[in-house]
Parts: sequence; C-alpha cells; structure tokens
Amino acid sequence: MIVVMKVGSPEAEIARLTEEFVSWGLSPEKIVGKHKVVIGLVGETVAMDPLQIQEASAWIEQVLRVEQPFKRASREYRNGEASEVAIPTPNGVVYIGEHHPIVTVAGPCSVENEEMIIETARRVKAAGAQFLRGGAFKPRTSPYAFQGHGESALGLLAAAREATGLGIITELMDASDLEPLAEIADVIQIGARNMQNFSLLKKVGAQDKPILLKRGMAATIEDWLMAAEYILAAGNPNVILCERGIRTFDRQYARNTLDLSAIPVLRTLTHLPIMIDPSHGTGRAEYVPSMAMASIAAGTDSLMIEVHPNPKKALSDGPQSLTPDAFDQLMRDLAIVGKPLGRWTEQRQPVGV
Amino acid sequence: MIVVMKVGSPEAEIARLTEEFVSWGLSPEKIVGKHKVVIGLVGETVAMDPLQIQEASAWIEQVLRVEQPFKRASREYRNGEASEVAIPTPNGVVYIGEHHPIVTVAGPCSVENEEMIIETARRVKAAGAQFLRGGAFKPRTSPYAFQGHGESALGLLAAAREATGLGIITELMDASDLEPLAEIADVIQIGARNMQNFSLLKKVGAQDKPILLKRGMAATIEDWLMAAEYILAAGNPNVILCERGIRTFDRQYARNTLDLSAIPVLRTLTHLPIMIDPSHGTGRAEYVPSMAMASIAAGTDSLMIEVHPNPKKALSDGPQSLTPDAFDQLMRDLAIVGKPLGRWTEQRQPVGV
Amino acid sequence: MIVVMKVGSPEAEIARLTEEFVSWGLSPEKIVGKHKVVIGLVGETVAMDPLQIQEASAWIEQVLRVEQPFKRASREYRNGEASEVAIPTPNGVVYIGEHHPIVTVAGPCSVENEEMIIETARRVKAAGAQFLRGGAFKPRTSPYAFQGHGESALGLLAAAREATGLGIITELMDASDLEPLAEIADVIQIGARNMQNFSLLKKVGAQDKPILLKRGMAATIEDWLMAAEYILAAGNPNVILCERGIRTFDRQYARNTLDLSAIPVLRTLTHLPIMIDPSHGTGRAEYVPSMAMASIAAGTDSLMIEVHPNPKKALSDGPQSLTPDAFDQLMRDLAIVGKPLGRWTEQRQPVGV
Amino acid sequence: MIVVMKVGSPEAEIARLTEEFVSWGLSPEKIVGKHKVVIGLVGETVAMDPLQIQEASAWIEQVLRVEQPFKRASREYRNGEASEVAIPTPNGVVYIGEHHPIVTVAGPCSVENEEMIIETARRVKAAGAQFLRGGAFKPRTSPYAFQGHGESALGLLAAAREATGLGIITELMDASDLEPLAEIADVIQIGARNMQNFSLLKKVGAQDKPILLKRGMAATIEDWLMAAEYILAAGNPNVILCERGIRTFDRQYARNTLDLSAIPVLRTLTHLPIMIDPSHGTGRAEYVPSMAMASIAAGTDSLMIEVHPNPKKALSDGPQSLTPDAFDQLMRDLAIVGKPLGRWTEQRQPVGV
Repeated sequence: MIVVMKVGSPEAEIARLTEEFVSWGLSPEKIVGKHKVVIGLVGETVAMDPLQIQEASAWIEQVLRVEQPFKRASREYRNGEASEVAIPTPNGVVYIGEHHPIVTVAGPCSVENEEMIIETARRVKAAGAQFLRGGAFKPRTSPYAFQGHGESALGLLAAAREATGLGIITELMDASDLEPLAEIADVIQIGARNMQNFSLLKKVGAQDKPILLKRGMAATIEDWLMAAEYILAAGNPNVILCERGIRTFDRQYARNTLDLSAIPVLRTLTHLPIMIDPSHGTGRAEYVPSMAMASIAAGTDSLMIEVHPNPKKALSDGPQSLTPDAFDQLMRDLAIVGKPLGRWTEQRQPVGV
Repeated sequence: MIVVMKVGSPEAEIARLTEEFVSWGLSPEKIVGKHKVVIGLVGETVAMDPLQIQEASAWIEQVLRVEQPFKRASREYRNGEASEVAIPTPNGVVYIGEHHPIVTVAGPCSVENEEMIIETARRVKAAGAQFLRGGAFKPRTSPYAFQGHGESALGLLAAAREATGLGIITELMDASDLEPLAEIADVIQIGARNMQNFSLLKKVGAQDKPILLKRGMAATIEDWLMAAEYILAAGNPNVILCERGIRTFDRQYARNTLDLSAIPVLRTLTHLPIMIDPSHGTGRAEYVPSMAMASIAAGTDSLMIEVHPNPKKALSDGPQSLTPDAFDQLMRDLAIVGKPLGRWTEQRQPVGV
Repeated sequence: MIVVMKVGSPEAEIARLTEEFVSWGLSPEKIVGKHKVVIGLVGETVAMDPLQIQEASAWIEQVLRVEQPFKRASREYRNGEASEVAIPTPNGVVYIGEHHPIVTVAGPCSVENEEMIIETARRVKAAGAQFLRGGAFKPRTSPYAFQGHGESALGLLAAAREATGLGIITELMDASDLEPLAEIADVIQIGARNMQNFSLLKKVGAQDKPILLKRGMAATIEDWLMAAEYILAAGNPNVILCERGIRTFDRQYARNTLDLSAIPVLRTLTHLPIMIDPSHGTGRAEYVPSMAMASIAAGTDSLMIEVHPNPKKALSDGPQSLTPDAFDQLMRDLAIVGKPLGRWTEQRQPVGV
Repeated sequence: MIVVMKVGSPEAEIARLTEEFVSWGLSPEKIVGKHKVVIGLVGETVAMDPLQIQEASAWIEQVLRVEQPFKRASREYRNGEASEVAIPTPNGVVYIGEHHPIVTVAGPCSVENEEMIIETARRVKAAGAQFLRGGAFKPRTSPYAFQGHGESALGLLAAAREATGLGIITELMDASDLEPLAEIADVIQIGARNMQNFSLLKKVGAQDKPILLKRGMAATIEDWLMAAEYILAAGNPNVILCERGIRTFDRQYARNTLDLSAIPVLRTLTHLPIMIDPSHGTGRAEYVPSMAMASIAAGTDSLMIEVHPNPKKALSDGPQSLTPDAFDQLMRDLAIVGKPLGRWTEQRQPVGV
C-alpha cells in the first residue's frame, strides 16, 4: 500500500502520519519523489480499506494498493518513479539510475596480484570506467579450482582504489567476510549462485553498503525481485540488479543466454537501477562488444565488463575477458550509441572530483 | 572443403575445374566474392587430401576444409565473406546483408481484410518499411483459433503490394500452397514450428523465392544452421535467418526470451543475413521498442515488427502489435541508433525506385 | 460442453438430440462410456446456458462445461473415463489404454535392409513385443545424414509384418507419402519435430489409421494436447500420446530429459492412452532399462524401445539401441514390475490370434 | 588417481604407502571395498605417470586415473563400488545405499507446532518411514512468507525424535545455525537454493553429520557432483544426493520436472547414494504416488515424501503434501514394486532396534 501525499504536505504532518501508521502495526517508509512524498506501507494491509486510510489526514492525495508480491522493489511503491543508487568513491559520488549517464564497471574476474590489478585499474579508468571489479572470493564449480586470494586480495583492491580513485565492486560469498569486505568495497556483489541465499541477503540488507544483486542462473524475474525485496525489507534501499545470462538449452557457443529483455521488463516492474554483464552473459570475449552495445540501446543504466591484461593467462574466466586495448575500443564504440541516446558523458568522470 | 582461386583466375579455368570436380563425384558451387572466386565442394570430401586437390590447377591459391557440420551455411564456405540476399520488389531491389542498411519488415500478424491490410501497408511504407508482413495461413496452437483467411488473403496481400510497392513476406505452412503463395510473396517465411519440417525445407530449397527461416522455439544455433543447410543444399542460396525468441523457464512477463546474442554468434559462424523479430520475441508491444533498438546496436541486418491498425481488436497477436503511430515513433528512434552506426539511410526507399 | 445422458436413454432420443444440436450449429459427437452415453458438443458454446440445454430432453442427466482449451482431448469430454485405441494387426487386435496390459513397441530407428528388419522383428516378437517400429522416412538434423530408405523401406516393413504378424508403427514426415505409408502402417507416427506441423495433423486427422503423436522437444503438456486436438477435431479419435524426452539445460549425459511426470499429469487431463519412449528420452542404451521400469511403475500404457541387431553399426541412433539379447532381458525385468501391478500378461500375444 | 591394492595387502604396507604419498604432496585416502583396498589420491597428479606410481610397492595391483572432474565423488574413485551412508538413529543404524532396502523419509515441509510434528512422526513411523523431515529454517521466495520457527522448531524435532526413535533430517541455511542444528539432526539437508553456496558446503564438509545435498533447480549433473565434491574434499564422506525436480519450460501442471533419469546417470558416474523427492519434484500431491513408484522402479535408494496432518492448512507447501492416510496407502503401494525388486523389507524397522 502506498500513501501519496499532496504537494506541499507539511513535514510535521508526514511525521505524525508515520507515527500513526506505526501505531497501527505497519512499517511506514518515507520516500521523497521529485514532486511528492510517498509513504510506503508494508505489513498486514490486505484487510485494510484504502478509503479508510485516506481519512487519516487531509493531506493524503491517494492511497494505492501495491499488487506485486515484491512490495518495496515495485515501481508502484515509488509511485512510478525510478530510484537511483548514489555511491561515494574517491573520485566523487557516482549515481546509477535511469536518469543518469551509463556507468561502467570493469576489471578482472579475480584479483591475481598487485601489479595486474593496479595496471588494470589504471587502464579501465583511462578508458572511462568508474568502478573496478575484481574477485577476492571466487565461487568456482570445482573445489580444486582457484578460489580467489581472499582477504589478501581485499588489500590489493584497496591499493588499486587508492591509486586510481575508482570505486570497488567485489563479491561476498560468506557472511563472516562481510566486515573486512565492506571496509574496502564501495558496492558489495551477491553472485548468481547466492541470489537465493536468503541468510546472506538478510545480512547485507542489515548494513549500509550498496548491493549489486546478480540474477540467478534459473531465476525468473519475479524470483529476482523477491530476492531484492529481502535486502530492501531488511533496511538497505540501495540495490542494483545485474543480469548476467540465464541458463537455457543452448550452451554450445554462448555459455549463457543474456536476457536483454529483462531491461524493459524490469523498467516496468521496478524502480531499481539495472546493470548488464555481457562478459558472463556470453562467456566469450568476441561476443561482448555487440552485447554491450545492445545493452545501452535497450536502456541499461550500467555495464560490467571483464578486462584482464592477459586473458590467455587469466586464473579464471580468461575466454570472456577483453584486453585493455579491446576495452578502449569498446568504450569508444559505446559512446557512438550512448551519446545520441543522451546516456553518455564525454568527460566520463564522476561528479565532485 | 573450399577451393580459393587466385585473383585473376580465368573463367575458362574455373569452368574446367568445376567439371573436373563433378567428375570426382563432388557438387562444386561457384561463389563470387569481392576479390576472389571460391569453389565450394560438398560431398565425400572427408577422405580427400587438400594438397592433392590443390594440384588440380595452378590457379588454386588454397584448399581449406570446412569444419562445421553446416557446410554451405558456414562462413568459411564463403571464405569469411558475408552474403546478401537481393529481393526484387515493385519499389526496386532490396538488399539484406551485413554491408547494407537495415531493412524493416512490418505489418499485422494476419491479413484480416482488404482495408486493414492496405491501410497498414501505407502506414508502414510511409514510416520507412520496405516489406509488408501478413499471414494468410496461420499456425495456431488451437484448432479452434482463427487459422488465417488462406488463399483469399493472398489476393489481399497482392493488392497491398500493388498499392504500395512494398515487398511481401508471408508464411508457408503446407507444401501444397507453395505455388499460389510463391506467386505473390517476395520472401517466403518458414515459421518456428516448421523449422525442422525437413520435407518443407527441401521443397522451398528447390524453388527460387528467398526464404525467411525462423528459429524454432527450442532450436540450438546449430540446429538452426542445419535447417538452413537443408534449403541451401536443395539449391536455394537465398536464406535469411530470423531470431524470434526461444523458450526458457521464464514466461511470466515476456512470452519468449529474445536471444540477441544469436547476432554475434551467427556473425562468426555463417555468411547468411540476420533478421530479428522482437514482436514474437517478447510478446508484448511495450517491450518491442527497446529490443528493436538493441537489435540494431547488436548488429542485425533487418527487423520484423508487428503493426496493426487496432491491436485490441486484432484476430491474433494483438498484445504484441504496435499501432501505426507507435511504429512511426519507433522508426524515428531506430534512426537515432542506426545512423551513427552507418546502418540507416535517411531516404529509406529501395534502390532503383 | 458435454451432455451426460441418463442410464437407459433410448437410442432414438439420443439421435433426435444429436440432430437438434446440429440444428443449433454445434458439432455433436456420441461417446459410449461404460455405463452412460455422453454427447460431446464443440462449437460456439461459450454463450450457452447449460440449464437451457438440459431442457432439450428429459433424458439428459447433466450438462457440463469443458473448461480446458483442449475439448475433445480432455478427460471431462469423456465424463472422466479413459479411452482406448484398438489396433487390428495380423496377430489380432491390440488395445492400448489404461485398462489394458502394457503394450510394447520395439525395433530399429531406421529400416536398413530386409535381413535386419526381419531378424529384429522375429526377435522382438519372441521377447513379447506386439509392434515393430522402424523408420522409412527419417527426420535428421543434417541434410547430409542418412534420410531413410523411403518407399522401399515400406516394402520391407510389410515383409516383416507378414513374417511375424506384428503391427507396424512408422513415421510420416510428408503428407504426400500418406497414402503408401498408411497402406502398410498399423499406426502412423508423427514425430517430435512435426508435433506442431498443423497441416500434417489435419491430414492425418482426416484419415482412419491410429496416430502416435510424439511430444515436441519444447512442447508444454498443453501444446501437446492441443496438437492432439487438431487430429481429434479433424475426425480421427485414435490418438496415442508418446513422451520422448524434452529439451532442458542439461544434455551432457542423457540427451533429453525424459519427463515421466507427464504420465500422472496426462492421466488427470486427458482420456487418451500414453506411450513412453525411453530410448529417445535418454539417448543412451544403458539408461533405457531403468527408465522403462520407471515408466511402468508410473502408469504408462505402452512403451517404445529401440532395438537393433548391431547397435554399433546402426545407420542412426545406435547409442540408444538395445541389442536383441538386452531387450530379452529387459522384457523379463519389466514383467517383475508389470505383473504385481496387474499390467503385464504372461502370454504377451494379442487377443484373437 | 586411484591405487588398487592386491587382495591380502598387509595393513603395514598400506600405511607405509600412504605416508609415502603424503611425502609426495598428495592427499591419500584409504577406501576399504568388499574385496580390495583402494588408495584414492587427489592433488597434482596430472603430470604423474601411473606406471611410476605402481613401482612404489609390489602390493599395488593397478593405478588408474580418474578422468571425471569430480574425483572423490566418482564411481572410479571407489573402483566401481557403491558407497553407503550409515546413520545412527534412536531406532538403530539406518543404511542408505545401492545394496540396502529403500529408506523412506517423511514429514511436513515445516515444523509448525509440537502436536503436529509428533502426530506426523508417529503416523509416518507407523507407515514404515525411518526418518522424519521437517523444516525449522525455511528458504522462502518471499521475505514476507513464513520463514520457519527457527531454533524453537529444533526443540520440537528433538521431541519427535525422542517420541518415535525416528532419525531427523532438517535443512541448514546459515552456517551460524550449524551447531544447534547438528545437535539434533541425524542428517543435515542443504537445499536446492544453496547447492552452490560453496562456503556452506565447505563448513558442512568439515563436520561429521551426514549431508543430504539437494540438486539445484538448474544444476547439471556435473554441477551437482562438483558440489558434492566440495563436501567430500572438506573431509565428510557421507553425502546423499537428492533429486527434487529441475526447472524447465513447462510449469503449468507440475511445478518442476522431476528428472528420474538422474538415477541411472548417477549410478554410472558416482558411488554416492541417491534419494528422490517427488513432492517438491512435482509440487502436487496427486502426482506424488506415481512418481514415488517410478523412483523405486528406476532404482533409487531412498525417498523423501511430504506428509502433513492437514495439507489445506499447512503453513507451506500444502498442495504437495500427502495426508497421513494417503501416505499409508502409498507405502503399501510402494511395497508392491519394491518387494519383487528386492529393495523393500516387510519389517521396515532399522537394524539393531
């Protein structure tokens, strides 16, 4: 249920109403939109009558039921407005959202050593990326495969952050690593395999760092939004949804099927910002550029691209990694599509540098 | 196996070689590329030694084995060059291929009556489409659903063709309708459900009209190229591959999953031109524009868009049809992406008008 | 809509009612159940009032709406009773249905030569099979693969039929082969790839031979029953539904995923008899026995098993074919499960020999 | 790599060899088979020469390379022999494995209150079950759905265990609950959504209680065995693999597609015991019996069946739960198939009661 307040509603009245809703046993959440304030209500609202709620204040314009099972993640919950995630980085605040230029995240699958991560960070920054990705803890199908360098890799990411000012995005696999990881990560990634690890979702929902929630390999759009809802319901409103390819019957050429129609579908269902990862989405470097181009044309808010200084020697995911040179070229190509659509800034540096 | 001839090889020598290959029991096919002539050889070539073949003429530059199971459809078969399909229409010849501007096919799911098909044809032509689509024979899940107006609808398509000069694309479901259908169709569509109707593929391969081969709902890329190979092997080189969405685990919002990664995958595997159908691919009109945009950015050669003068009253596929006004807007939007990529011509009229 | 007649309704009254329904523009079909006669009504019944229909005769017990989109195929259409398909063979009439012992169909993927087909027929008959399968026309992914021996193979099947008295099941791919094929086939198979070849379905629905309708690789249960409905609606009530594995994300070990839950699902939805093909369903001979056992325990009415005298030299589908010896063993094992369930007869010979 | 020792190899020699392998940097594991002892070697064995290893002792019969990526889980690792999991319960030790009678696990989706869990335990025990299932921590798609009663439910399970002597199987979602859960659980379940929660797998691999590893919704057989390998590699050899339905394109009637072909596939690939869960596998109580029957005929080692005293009022998964009466009937029916196959004991009580 959402309560749309009239334009100009006094703060005191909003506060009073909020308290009243609490007294009714509901969990009110104040959402400040462009023109209006909305109070989101989650709880036992099924039996409530919108008209009765409307009588609680003359400043209420409208009371609307949120029909979707994902309440806080639904677009209705923000009265149809998109939300944005604002991420402070050494280079300034980066905004990811429908009304902002496309943000690019780039870097290797895993942090291998200091030289490679810093070199990669410098190269992707120079090409226009605002975030460095790099795994310290790696979910690998085989227990005998390289599992990431763990905490020591976190230190290397911190060094790359300091050297370049880029924000850091890295994956959390185990709640017991949350504290050290959150210290250096600007965005915490929850990987596809943990999308329905509800214990982990509740824990990252109970802390402040923004969350990048990758779609599970066989997660429906609704499953995915319900997973986001776990994080939102636990108190963290900063969730970015990342499509990274789904599992289908054909895996001979592309490893996964990148579901770009998720972009318009999510746009109508949720206010949350969207990221596309064409590297995992296709599994082959040669397919990445055209899928990155397509993502922008389809309306993504951000992109995640794997870049490795020497893909052939990568400890993981080499076949899907671009070289820094190929990434330079890709960024120039992306501008060709992004600029006329008004989603690409020439000076790709964050606000406030 | 392909035999690449040296630049400047005399016609007489190519003819002599071709005859020699026939005498060896092979099926040679002369392919004229930009700079070189290639002789494609299909047949019992597994046991043959490329070096031995090379000795057959001093004009042979190279003999290469085609490793793919789809021989004639493979990119190697044309020595890495794309092919194009040239389609004569009343308005002139339309080319579909990698080195040509994007071609747009638009129109209703089924031909309902003369007024609607002619009105739609006029509107989509005015918006820049080069082909009118419209079903006379409709494959419907239910035997009780509208099955298309059949032969009488072919007459209406002919009238629309005459009225607008647009080329006509319509689906063939039954070989016994081939003759009347081929009389009015400029391109014959084989639908997703018949992609592996091998009898039908052989029959359309044995006639001259270009074929639009839609991908089956659960066809792998390889299945699809093998289906194209049936048509090529039967003698018809003019095949366009149309992705229209595959069937996956999630059908709640989008009816199918439009597999845009098919574009870069096909580009590396085959020389055949590519079309994307975001209307069937998503099943919902509101998702069509962003997927059409993405298709262009990903590199498609052509688009198929469902347009109906009154989608709510359509006899079939209303929910995925754009109104003529929405199609006008879409074409303007597509130009924004298509032009900077060099795939969109201002004057969207075919050559030779 | 179905009209359930009271026990003892006079034939004349049923005939009169039937004519009345025709005069209303409906297509009545008389279905004789164990205890009662039912008149099935398909047509524009949506607007009709069951109570009003009931007034058409004092002999009407009940008028029920069929809610499923597949009308004639639905279990409701026969008032909850199973149907059976009775197939005359030289050895007598074989019944396939819920209230009959399990029927076994066995034989090679394709008819290769006279000796192999007759030898196989003798062996599978001796082991207890009632039908010989064998392809004359083969749907192959590649145009360069063996396509079946065509009409000449039909002659060999006829010879095997004469030699053993077994019924013959063989696949029809092209309507133009229907006449010669129907002359020798006791059951006409429509393969998975043609399950939605609606033209072909209409044609086999307009003739008399029973139809074995294989489930398409990505056909939902509803798609499949709608395909059966095409045949029923065209006038042929003798349809057997054959599950042969669906396409899923995992094809590494088993080529398809045999969907045995189709058995209880179909049982609740349709009156039509069920066959399971674990050979195509798994693609590997070593998995066939346990899946055949499971099919019986799950309640199938019949089984189709590939048997080849020398699987390693088979022209098609060798890896999934049992040797005749392995088939002998399998039939002994199937009896262990089939007998206590009351679905296996010691003397596996058809009635009327 | 496995080292097969000759029959009669002295213990001292096996111990000496084991130490030698440790000195080579390998992780040897002694596996006692029916007739022979095998030493499993995991580690950097790719470059090693089996012949050279063979020279390490005259008591070595053969050195074989394990080709599968899942080393310890592979059937080769035990030289082709099945393993069994022995589970001590108050009623005695229950064995799950290929050479033992089928073990049945039954109970509600979640533990709702003391009365229902004890009543259910009594009923399923009386019907012949050896284990009680019941969730204390429930993975639910929605954060607003009932999440299980948590630790208090563990106490109720302990009470049910004491009242009936049944072993307890319950799901672990969060490593921080491992200690209290392992105190009362006889088998710890890892659910489908956590199948690739590698952190959790490592933790349950580092403790002693047997693990029931459910297959992920879109996990290939190889993914699944690799997940089991995580547990085995961490030191816990007691893993049972539970198929519970995979996600496919058709979810209209059955919620998942129960992949029974996993049974013969796993049998050839792994020595680990197999369980089938037809309740989650189909999602509908009416489909459970035939799929349970089929599981036994296909060769499963154990079954997990949801039973609830009042399915219509269940807090979760009501539609797929049997009533106690229906479970009684099912157990009688399962005996009909299980007995002639030699997998069902009349007196369904564990050894040593």
